[in-house]
Amino acid sequence: MDLTRLLSPKRVAVVGASPKPGKVGEIVTRQLVEAGFEVYPVHPKETVIHGRKVLSRVEDLPDGVDLAVVTLGAQRAVPAAVAAADRGIPFVVVVAGGFREAGGADLEAELVGELRKRGTRLLGPNTLGLMDARSGLDTLFVQHVRFDGTGPGRIAFISQSGSVGTEATALASWGGLELASFIGLGNKSDLSELDFLEHYASREDVDTIMLYLETVSGGRPFLEAARRAALTKPVVVLKAGRSGSAAKAVASHTGSLAGSYRVLGGAFRQFGLVQATSDEEMMDMANALALAPVPRGNKVGIFTPAGGFGVMAVDETEQEGAWPKMVMARPSQTTQKAIKEASFPFVATGNPVDLTASVTVDMYAQSLKIFASDPDVDILVAGIFFSPAGLGEPTAPAMADAARWVVDELGKPVVMFVFDGERTFDRTRYFHSRGLPAYPSVRRAVRAARALVERSEFLRRHGS
Amino acid sequence: MDLTRLLSPKRVAVVGASPKPGKVGEIVTRQLVEAGFEVYPVHPKETVIHGRKVLSRVEDLPDGVDLAVVTLGAQRAVPAAVAAADRGIPFVVVVAGGFREAGGADLEAELVGELRKRGTRLLGPNTLGLMDARSGLDTLFVQHVRFDGTGPGRIAFISQSGSVGTEATALASWGGLELASFIGLGNKSDLSELDFLEHYASREDVDTIMLYLETVSGGRPFLEAARRAALTKPVVVLKAGRSGSAAKAVASHTGSLAGSYRVLGGAFRQFGLVQATSDEEMMDMANALALAPVPRGNKVGIFTPAGGFGVMAVDETEQEGAWPKMVMARPSQTTQKAIKEASFPFVATGNPVDLTASVTVDMYAQSLKIFASDPDVDILVAGIFFSPAGLGEPTAPAMADAARWVVDELGKPVVMFVFDGERTFDRTRYFHSRGLPAYPSVRRAVRAARALVERSEFLRRHGS
Repeated sequence: MDLTRLLSPKRVAVVGASPKPGKVGEIVTRQLVEAGFEVYPVHPKETVIHGRKVLSRVEDLPDGVDLAVVTLGAQRAVPAAVAAADRGIPFVVVVAGGFREAGGADLEAELVGELRKRGTRLLGPNTLGLMDARSGLDTLFVQHVRFDGTGPGRIAFISQSGSVGTEATALASWGGLELASFIGLGNKSDLSELDFLEHYASREDVDTIMLYLETVSGGRPFLEAARRAALTKPVVVLKAGRSGSAAKAVASHTGSLAGSYRVLGGAFRQFGLVQATSDEEMMDMANALALAPVPRGNKVGIFTPAGGFGVMAVDETEQEGAWPKMVMARPSQTTQKAIKEASFPFVATGNPVDLTASVTVDMYAQSLKIFASDPDVDILVAGIFFSPAGLGEPTAPAMADAARWVVDELGKPVVMFVFDGERTFDRTRYFHSRGLPAYPSVRRAVRAARALVERSEFLRRHGS
Repeated sequence: MDLTRLLSPKRVAVVGASPKPGKVGEIVTRQLVEAGFEVYPVHPKETVIHGRKVLSRVEDLPDGVDLAVVTLGAQRAVPAAVAAADRGIPFVVVVAGGFREAGGADLEAELVGELRKRGTRLLGPNTLGLMDARSGLDTLFVQHVRFDGTGPGRIAFISQSGSVGTEATALASWGGLELASFIGLGNKSDLSELDFLEHYASREDVDTIMLYLETVSGGRPFLEAARRAALTKPVVVLKAGRSGSAAKAVASHTGSLAGSYRVLGGAFRQFGLVQATSDEEMMDMANALALAPVPRGNKVGIFTPAGGFGVMAVDETEQEGAWPKMVMARPSQTTQKAIKEASFPFVATGNPVDLTASVTVDMYAQSLKIFASDPDVDILVAGIFFSPAGLGEPTAPAMADAARWVVDELGKPVVMFVFDGERTFDRTRYFHSRGLPAYPSVRRAVRAARALVERSEFLRRHGS
């Protein structure tokens, strides 16, 4: 279905708008006004909020309002949402909790039923809200999130959890997640991941979809929607509530039954979903899929100035039982000789390439290019740490230049791991800004690389 | 053997001392002078370095030097080390690479043989050095590490990798790892993990030992040394070089054969070693073991203001195949009623306890204590994020107070996970300073909790 008026509205009503700093109705109004939307605050007594004339009743709203964000408590939210539907508003977001997840199943059924009769679609209730970099829409009421959408964000995140949503949007707001759009599904009593999968699959400014789900809408319909999306772009999913007690916790927390993971989990792979096992892994994989090209195969080159990191990277690459299988590339004698000539005769060149702590920046950048050019290398996992004497401040740009050359000229992905003490996060952010996925741990980098190989295998199976 | 003169020397010679900032011989000299040791720089031409009179030859050193740090290149390091041994110095550290790991096996054999004849013990060659908070010794030449040992550090780290050593000491220097002492084993051609396991097992200022190994010295002797240590304090080990290609990389990087992981891996558990599978996990586990008490059993209580985090925590707790098994505690009806009375009637109290985003700081702290007091809860995994309106700045101290009460009054461990956007690391550091292990992810917190349960099972098997 067409979600344009929900995600790129022109006229937005805030029912429950408030002048009181920190209140949800205040935060939402302010953000909408600052982003330049036509905002219509609704409040029975106020006259002006954030410079906008307040309407005392929903019934007074003008024609053509695209979206109503209802920030009232559960009991008052229902008649307000129905009034918005009566005014012909096609989309309503109900923020309040206190519905099915907290003993209010009847109230939720009433809300959904009345809106459905009127042809109005509902996001929520019990939702963190939504945000979209393309339109500037941001109804999130989590105060410390200031997502400006200026990064190279091309990830859309559909989340059934407000807390994981908060984590992701916070990470995005300081440059750690390349987010373009976010949907908090809340209780998803009407609009669900099925609708948003379809929407994001068709959007050109989104090239990776990330999903956090505790319950799955419909089983088979979900898998089919996910596959349709996966044929156009990578879809990473974290299905939480896998264990028995977790499924019970999901029931108590969302008011829904968690899907049977045993049945679903096996199907995910078959339907082309890249499956994450934790929130961090989900975001790591999505960053790699959003930033790096898909490799031609599963042969990994590992490149590092530090033996220990190289050994750990090989352990992760060849980890038993990990899927899809990745193998160590075998660089030719010519490649190995060229690396030694570009650096030192004593360095290890057999893969992992270990240039040792004696390396200089130029040697490092040059050897990276030589290694990546070997025909047996499909994907490069390259590490860097800033302690060796030769690897100081100019290292990051030089490494990024070399890695970009590998991506742009050879079309091969480069996934980086980076250590620089307390500056580590700033370093990963720098590499992100150069379009290179970067991680503060060897394991996380290799797992992100595996997501790229998985995507490559899916595309090969489907003839792309 | 007695390593006192190595780790707490009075008189230290630096053979290869240099006045040139950034050179290894300069960094080491400076650090030793600043820490107040009696330092004897040796250099053929210089007269004074960092305020200390320079001796032109090793032969000129006074009697009673405890330790010689040799910072010369491989070829010149060998005669220098031998001269130090001739001068009766009991411990020599050889920093240089260029030995067995780089085609110099003969040179290394000469070094070891000559020192052995003279009864001098060798750390290295090819070592990052060592550092000890108790004595103030710090011969690490990695420039950005400034480890001051002022934290509650009680972890000793024995590392066969300089790069993992750098990672750990960097993390320690900004409060993320509770380090008391560090040994870079280098090529461990004389002193090995066996010696340092014995040393740290007997030290009262160390209560957790962390080991990163690529090769194992002697197989059975290692396991027996580890068990002796494990009977006194927890020993966490990361054995890298597990896969086939990784073992080859180890051979090239260290000049030694990696032990067969299939044989060793199974024995680790039996001998009481807590086994980590990545560098990050190793440090996470060590922090928990160093900071938290050992639980009485394996029943986990999960406590959070956020449903999604609770669901993920349960998934991790009940993860199939994970060892040791952990189960979800079942709080009594009395406990559950008391939590509802202390917070809201609609919160989930069955475990995970999910207080929802409506919670206030007081409710949070009070409910944590009630939940922890339930007799079925052995260990608490408690999450916090700072976004809900009620959980602002006063949350961290209130939570820490409540968690300390649980530890001090009930004797139960509390492991925390913390989310606060870009301030997350500062938050985890704050909880560390209160003696509480804290992690920026649910998975990492639960895995650290599992290490505590594993320690508890080992101690129960051994009657402590």
